[in-house]
Amino acid sequence: MTSSPTRYTLHEISERFGGEIVGDPQLSVSRVATLENAGPDAIAFLANPRYLWQVEATRAGAVIVGPAERETTKAARIVCANPYAYFARVSALLNPPRAAVPGVHPTAVVDASANVHPRAEVGPYSVICREAQLAEGSTIGAGTYVGEGVRVGRDTRLHPSVTVYDGCTIGERVVLHSGVVIGADGFGIAFDEDRWVKVPQIGRVRIGDDVEIGANTTIDRGAIDDTVIEDGVKLDNQIQVAHNVRIGAHTAIAACTGIAGSVQIGAHCRIGGAVGIAGHVSITDRVEISGHTAITRSIDTPGVYSGVYPFEPNNKWRRNAAQLRHLAEIGRRVSALEDGLEKLAREGRTDD
Amino acid sequence: MTSSPTRYTLHEISERFGGEIVGDPQLSVSRVATLENAGPDAIAFLANPRYLWQVEATRAGAVIVGPAERETTKAARIVCANPYAYFARVSALLNPPRAAVPGVHPTAVVDASANVHPRAEVGPYSVICREAQLAEGSTIGAGTYVGEGVRVGRDTRLHPSVTVYDGCTIGERVVLHSGVVIGADGFGIAFDEDRWVKVPQIGRVRIGDDVEIGANTTIDRGAIDDTVIEDGVKLDNQIQVAHNVRIGAHTAIAACTGIAGSVQIGAHCRIGGAVGIAGHVSITDRVEISGHTAITRSIDTPGVYSGVYPFEPNNKWRRNAAQLRHLAEIGRRVSALEDGLEKLAREGRTDD
Amino acid sequence: MTSSPTRYTLHEISERFGGEIVGDPQLSVSRVATLENAGPDAIAFLANPRYLWQVEATRAGAVIVGPAERETTKAARIVCANPYAYFARVSALLNPPRAAVPGVHPTAVVDASANVHPRAEVGPYSVICREAQLAEGSTIGAGTYVGEGVRVGRDTRLHPSVTVYDGCTIGERVVLHSGVVIGADGFGIAFDEDRWVKVPQIGRVRIGDDVEIGANTTIDRGAIDDTVIEDGVKLDNQIQVAHNVRIGAHTAIAACTGIAGSVQIGAHCRIGGAVGIAGHVSITDRVEISGHTAITRSIDTPGVYSGVYPFEPNNKWRRNAAQLRHLAEIGRRVSALEDGLEKLAREGRTDD
Repeated sequence: MTSSPTRYTLHEISERFGGEIVGDPQLSVSRVATLENAGPDAIAFLANPRYLWQVEATRAGAVIVGPAERETTKAARIVCANPYAYFARVSALLNPPRAAVPGVHPTAVVDASANVHPRAEVGPYSVICREAQLAEGSTIGAGTYVGEGVRVGRDTRLHPSVTVYDGCTIGERVVLHSGVVIGADGFGIAFDEDRWVKVPQIGRVRIGDDVEIGANTTIDRGAIDDTVIEDGVKLDNQIQVAHNVRIGAHTAIAACTGIAGSVQIGAHCRIGGAVGIAGHVSITDRVEISGHTAITRSIDTPGVYSGVYPFEPNNKWRRNAAQLRHLAEIGRRVSALEDGLEKLAREGRTDD
Repeated sequence: MTSSPTRYTLHEISERFGGEIVGDPQLSVSRVATLENAGPDAIAFLANPRYLWQVEATRAGAVIVGPAERETTKAARIVCANPYAYFARVSALLNPPRAAVPGVHPTAVVDASANVHPRAEVGPYSVICREAQLAEGSTIGAGTYVGEGVRVGRDTRLHPSVTVYDGCTIGERVVLHSGVVIGADGFGIAFDEDRWVKVPQIGRVRIGDDVEIGANTTIDRGAIDDTVIEDGVKLDNQIQVAHNVRIGAHTAIAACTGIAGSVQIGAHCRIGGAVGIAGHVSITDRVEISGHTAITRSIDTPGVYSGVYPFEPNNKWRRNAAQLRHLAEIGRRVSALEDGLEKLAREGRTDD
Repeated sequence: MTSSPTRYTLHEISERFGGEIVGDPQLSVSRVATLENAGPDAIAFLANPRYLWQVEATRAGAVIVGPAERETTKAARIVCANPYAYFARVSALLNPPRAAVPGVHPTAVVDASANVHPRAEVGPYSVICREAQLAEGSTIGAGTYVGEGVRVGRDTRLHPSVTVYDGCTIGERVVLHSGVVIGADGFGIAFDEDRWVKVPQIGRVRIGDDVEIGANTTIDRGAIDDTVIEDGVKLDNQIQVAHNVRIGAHTAIAACTGIAGSVQIGAHCRIGGAVGIAGHVSITDRVEISGHTAITRSIDTPGVYSGVYPFEPNNKWRRNAAQLRHLAEIGRRVSALEDGLEKLAREGRTDD
């Protein structure tokens, strides 16, 4: 990082990404920053009115705002409909992803039958197995294992220490973070004579284009057919995807969520962190699930679904939670009270 | 996979695994498939009556069914008591696990004092430490770390990128999937003068025979004594097993479950995904725990236990969950109503 | 481990750590053990009165007890205020952590610009990138990846198979267990035109001194500013720390907990296992959170907080949980009953 950073003028930026410049179009920025910490070299953004006070105080060279906040600052502004997405694009311009440095590290073990594009990058101590295929612009990080027949698409990046079992396919412009395991055996076991018999898992994992998968996330191969992650899916860290699951296009899932076998998730869903989805459940498109919720049956209507146990100071929780084992009984007692009150009211009127 | 696949006749299959053939015993199959996707080369199974319609439509060469479904198809059938387990065995026959390819990869770092059986396989970039022992038929995957004095039993397979800390022992025919960490320090910390003092973890992990452990699962070494996984246990992905835990024989645990320190789990238990088991809890044999349940005290009677918060559309959840902090109060108000109603009823009778 | 173990007398021990000896100060021990399994060579401890019976039966050479248990045994004793912490220190004396063995393994790939202290240890198949800095006494385990510009402090130990992305800094006397991933991208995605745009994550992770991080835990780099783990923090296995989180000094967090983006956790907190903390929540100092609890809003008062759904036999849970979707309704029915009863009581009195 010894060269001086690239600068872009607001004009150059709006040529690429649209938006309306308010202020000097020739003002240039070289980095992104938060409103709080920005200096004159930086461009920041406001997406949440909660942080309006930060806009008023910012020393940023320029700020990206929505139409409603157009006049909240004297700093140079780019006004646009979706400040956060606009900021994402500007940040990607100022902080371009590392491109593949073509070449195979001398320490990489690459099977003679593997097909490695001359403009792919294979890092130190990687293992590329028989008949694997690495497309142009793909990057295999240090210590990564690419199994037999695995296909890695164009401009896809595997960070160090990723493991991809035999036969799996990964699309283009995919990012897999460290510790990800693609294609381990699904949890197929059959109970017989008081013990478990392993069910071989002979399907694969198929990952589409423009997918990003966070650190230590695991996606199991299918039992017979494949586990499928469609285009544009974004998975956070430490997510578990069981065998035979299909996750629909452009669905985003936050960290620590567990998806059991054969679940079908639609497109454009937003699933929170630490969600649990029970086996064979089917979730339609455009469903949003709150974090920490257990989804125990299928959802066929778009909308927001929640099932979070609220927290309290421990002594209050203790007293309230103790009633949970009596809820059915409380329901019955309330019904009995209603009957009793109604009867008494009738008797009262009869007496008159 | 360039040779033609091995074919087996239904006769050969039933010679091995039992069951009653209905149809041509000489019919042969070379693969397993789902009922939906099977062709004449394949054998499929029906274990769940929900999928009966698939049996009627299948083009599978043969189908494995239970006695109640004997006449549901004209395809050649094998009728047996436990179709899923039977299918598991047929699939293992048609898809045998990869055997060890004897030999130590030239890039493996193997300490001179380690004892590696001539018919063990050690993959590229593995590290085999001082006095480790790898038995006949064992397979050490690429990039795997086998610590000092670790013992790996016959026909056990460590997939790529497994880490086994010093001193741990692994039985025979065990499978460890990628990202598994065996023997990291348990979470032993003592609070003193407002900070934490580390408690050295000097126990080990002992894993029995026929255990399978899923990707990115972690099993910590004992604080002083050992953490023990008994024979036949099946652990899914991303399970956490804390120090000093014992998991009884043939217990199966689904993904993302967290087991705290010193928990004792009996034999033949079935524990769902994303379960949490609190420290020092003791669970007897043949207990089944629903997914997403928090087990906060010991269970001494076999049976099924659950504690899952049900989900709903968000607006309904919001209204209902708001009442949870008033449950104790609702209980009291119901009791007060019962007293009040009873009193009023007595007064009404007195008035007469 | 071929040399005879080091022995220490009770006198030598109390010279270092304080406490009052009851019995022969010249009695020596060479190992720690549990009360149950200890022999005359060993020192054990009693911290929990529940295990008093074990003290009475123990064959340990010496026992560490609190003042209240002073007379519970005839074995030589060290009496002190905090037996568990005292035991931790004695165990560390008898089981000292492995010190760095200075030197760079011939198979390590170390960039020419990296600065590796002569008394650091770099294990086989490690990759040390451009301008990384490894301080005196630091240990880099086998197969570990240390990214560009990463700083590893004095006497810090990375176990095998750890991954540290570019730019992150790690303090002194830190321990990172296998499978830990430091500095992967935070889950920054912006929604635009029905799909997700990646937000580059240009912050880093900064880890203080005396931090310990358990196996397969992930700590993401900040979106713009840093993710910060302060001094003395202890993290168990499989914890997820999202971007822009700050964890205060000497806070301890048990396994499987997920902390969402921008959460601020104070100092001296104790957070249970499988806790979920929602994004942007702020938790003050000295807060304790029970395991399996979802923290959905900020906590500004020290204390203990819980939100765990209690478990029961499945049939009872089913009946009780079914009422949860009617809680708001039950609240209304109870209010209506109270109104109805009050009205009837007034009418009764009017009639008189």
